[in-house]
Amino acid sequence: MELLRVGICGAGNVGGAVIKLIKESSDLLLQQGGVSIELIQVGARKGRAVVPYEDLDVTTDLMEVANNPNIDVFVELIGGTELALELIKTAIGNGKHVVTANKALLAIHGNTIFELAREKEVQVGFEASVAGGTPVIKALREGLVANKIEWFAGILNGTSNYILSEMSNENTEFSVALNKAQELGLAEADPTLDIDGTDAAQKASILAALAFHIPFDSSKVDYGGIDAVDLEDLKYAEELGYSIKHIAYGSLLGEEVSISAYPTLVSHDTLLSQVGQEMNAVEIFAQGIGSTVYYGPGAGPEPTASAVIADLVDVAKGSWHGSSIGLSKNTAGSKNLKHMSRYLRMKANNEPGAIANISSVFAKNNISIEALIQHESKPKSNEELGSVPVVILSGPITDNVAEELRISIENMTEVSGRVKQFRIHTKID
Amino acid sequence: MELLRVGICGAGNVGGAVIKLIKESSDLLLQQGGVSIELIQVGARKGRAVVPYEDLDVTTDLMEVANNPNIDVFVELIGGTELALELIKTAIGNGKHVVTANKALLAIHGNTIFELAREKEVQVGFEASVAGGTPVIKALREGLVANKIEWFAGILNGTSNYILSEMSNENTEFSVALNKAQELGLAEADPTLDIDGTDAAQKASILAALAFHIPFDSSKVDYGGIDAVDLEDLKYAEELGYSIKHIAYGSLLGEEVSISAYPTLVSHDTLLSQVGQEMNAVEIFAQGIGSTVYYGPGAGPEPTASAVIADLVDVAKGSWHGSSIGLSKNTAGSKNLKHMSRYLRMKANNEPGAIANISSVFAKNNISIEALIQHESKPKSNEELGSVPVVILSGPITDNVAEELRISIENMTEVSGRVKQFRIHTKID
Repeated sequence: MELLRVGICGAGNVGGAVIKLIKESSDLLLQQGGVSIELIQVGARKGRAVVPYEDLDVTTDLMEVANNPNIDVFVELIGGTELALELIKTAIGNGKHVVTANKALLAIHGNTIFELAREKEVQVGFEASVAGGTPVIKALREGLVANKIEWFAGILNGTSNYILSEMSNENTEFSVALNKAQELGLAEADPTLDIDGTDAAQKASILAALAFHIPFDSSKVDYGGIDAVDLEDLKYAEELGYSIKHIAYGSLLGEEVSISAYPTLVSHDTLLSQVGQEMNAVEIFAQGIGSTVYYGPGAGPEPTASAVIADLVDVAKGSWHGSSIGLSKNTAGSKNLKHMSRYLRMKANNEPGAIANISSVFAKNNISIEALIQHESKPKSNEELGSVPVVILSGPITDNVAEELRISIENMTEVSGRVKQFRIHTKID
Repeated sequence: MELLRVGICGAGNVGGAVIKLIKESSDLLLQQGGVSIELIQVGARKGRAVVPYEDLDVTTDLMEVANNPNIDVFVELIGGTELALELIKTAIGNGKHVVTANKALLAIHGNTIFELAREKEVQVGFEASVAGGTPVIKALREGLVANKIEWFAGILNGTSNYILSEMSNENTEFSVALNKAQELGLAEADPTLDIDGTDAAQKASILAALAFHIPFDSSKVDYGGIDAVDLEDLKYAEELGYSIKHIAYGSLLGEEVSISAYPTLVSHDTLLSQVGQEMNAVEIFAQGIGSTVYYGPGAGPEPTASAVIADLVDVAKGSWHGSSIGLSKNTAGSKNLKHMSRYLRMKANNEPGAIANISSVFAKNNISIEALIQHESKPKSNEELGSVPVVILSGPITDNVAEELRISIENMTEVSGRVKQFRIHTKID
């Protein structure tokens, strides 16, 4: 049996759930993990009022926790990046291990933190930072330790997934689905970071650091949000046998890593296409194994707290060195080199030869057309008179080629307005 | 960096893949796992001829490996239960850690092995024994360490899953699908242990020991095989919105564990229903987290070898004590206490009042009817003249009640022949 003396900063939703688990599940933790966790001190800016255990030592001075000599592991759950970084640097400087659920902090300051941790020979746990209660960090760093990872594809933002599911299931527009997500507490009052893909991009950079042994660097992630998805896109996708999900990709080609996160058509015969509501899932393709998939809740106080505790037990076992992050020859470029099929939606003029001319752009660029839908024209407004919606699925091409293709078509006189382009994720056999 | 000195017994498909990984991926293992694995000795009954590395020390005397003083970890990959047990007992007696992929051995002799391991304070890794390359053992013992597990539901036998998928996709009978599985090497010449549910039952007993901290005891698993599934059942299931999968269940109610493995209808809105071909998947429902799902290859030399290596890296870290197995107050009973909806298929006489009388049996027992299908009678043989197939989905009832219901209906004069009963697994919200 090991004894772990813990200090926690942050007593909000997640912090509160961690404190509750430690106080009320000590028997279970001892039985299942062989570890006895003693909560030495809690740092809460609002003080004792927010910590419903009278026997706990609560301080409003967070730095006091990071400096407390009786603490072995410092748990950072205050969120934000600047104060959190200062606290963690102080704690590591004092030789303490660190556990954090803070994806933004890792995406921005992860390298600083891991360099310091290596120097001081302490462990840094961050299972809770990606996919909440789903142990995908553990799978990457331990379960697949013998296998070179070629790519991962993940639904990492629960809010986006909820909104896309709701639009698809209830046949509602984006704004209606967003309102419902906000009512249910699944989206924040300002949902920008979820909706525009920033959150997923940060998480993707963390998975990529682990999977491909590169430094944390979310500036290398090419991304876009679900605000690009119209209800019409979901309907066409369904008709063609696909769902639309916000998918974060990381892949390794040679020594070049590309990381990105975009709305993506996902084939109905894949598990990822079945991940509904606010759930998360990550598919990891490794040499020798092929695809494994990890599915579970991506957020919420209890799942996140469970991941924090799992990290604490791992720290008690001294099980992870973390030294591989940033230490390979691999480098992250900004371009996605993966060949993927594409979905293109456009408005073509309702005139003879339009489809033939559009098709010829594909042929000229040696890109195959896998499917084409042009329904009978039913204009809903004067604007739409004289044009018909056309959806084309292309064969596999890179992001660069896809963007060139999109622009070529957009510039055609036979096409009016913007042309939309999404990636397609299919099953690997 | 840690150095791990390893001895392997067994150089067949899996053993060969493990040896290859250690010899050819040492850079990757060092980078990703921080561990240097030195292969000290290989025990192969066929000798050097089956080990394609000239620099390796190969012996035909397997016991020599278990007694080799230069070895830290003994890897058992010979299969079978008696010699494997002797080797492992000897290795543990010599203070060596053990890694095994042998589910039958654990299901039968797991308690002996773990008692001895506790006494000698060595680790026993067995990730490869269940679901091959899918790190579900790791998820149970570490990822979900902070959470009480309520139940698991797993597709654990790849051969059965392949056959059911093939029957469903290709509209073929069981025997045709089995032949194809044998041609592809997915079923053995004598497929009995896969087909009759024995293999899944053994794996279920291993997951239950971990999830509920009970002793290994496959005699407590109530099970049946996929030979009970007719093509007709798959068609009715599809019509009703279900797949049929062979599902191993373990659940905890109070301190009573029930473990079982049966063909089961699985609702199309669950991930498990989408697990096709020879793939494995396990859904684990834990307090505070809800469902997480782990999907991947359940067999094959490379995935299994990857799991063995992951165990070796864990042993090098000293990360798992394993002490919880068999040490709870929970006990395994033979009855499944879970209330589950049921599928019943019968032949009813084509006469006035038959359906009314059958329905009244449900009403009398206070069991709801959730769905009922009776298609127009199209007899294919003289035997079938005068009878119509009827399928009923019941509300949630226990196994005992379901069996009593099945017998009551079977004994009715309005029903001819056997009545079939399968469980139904639905989505938990």
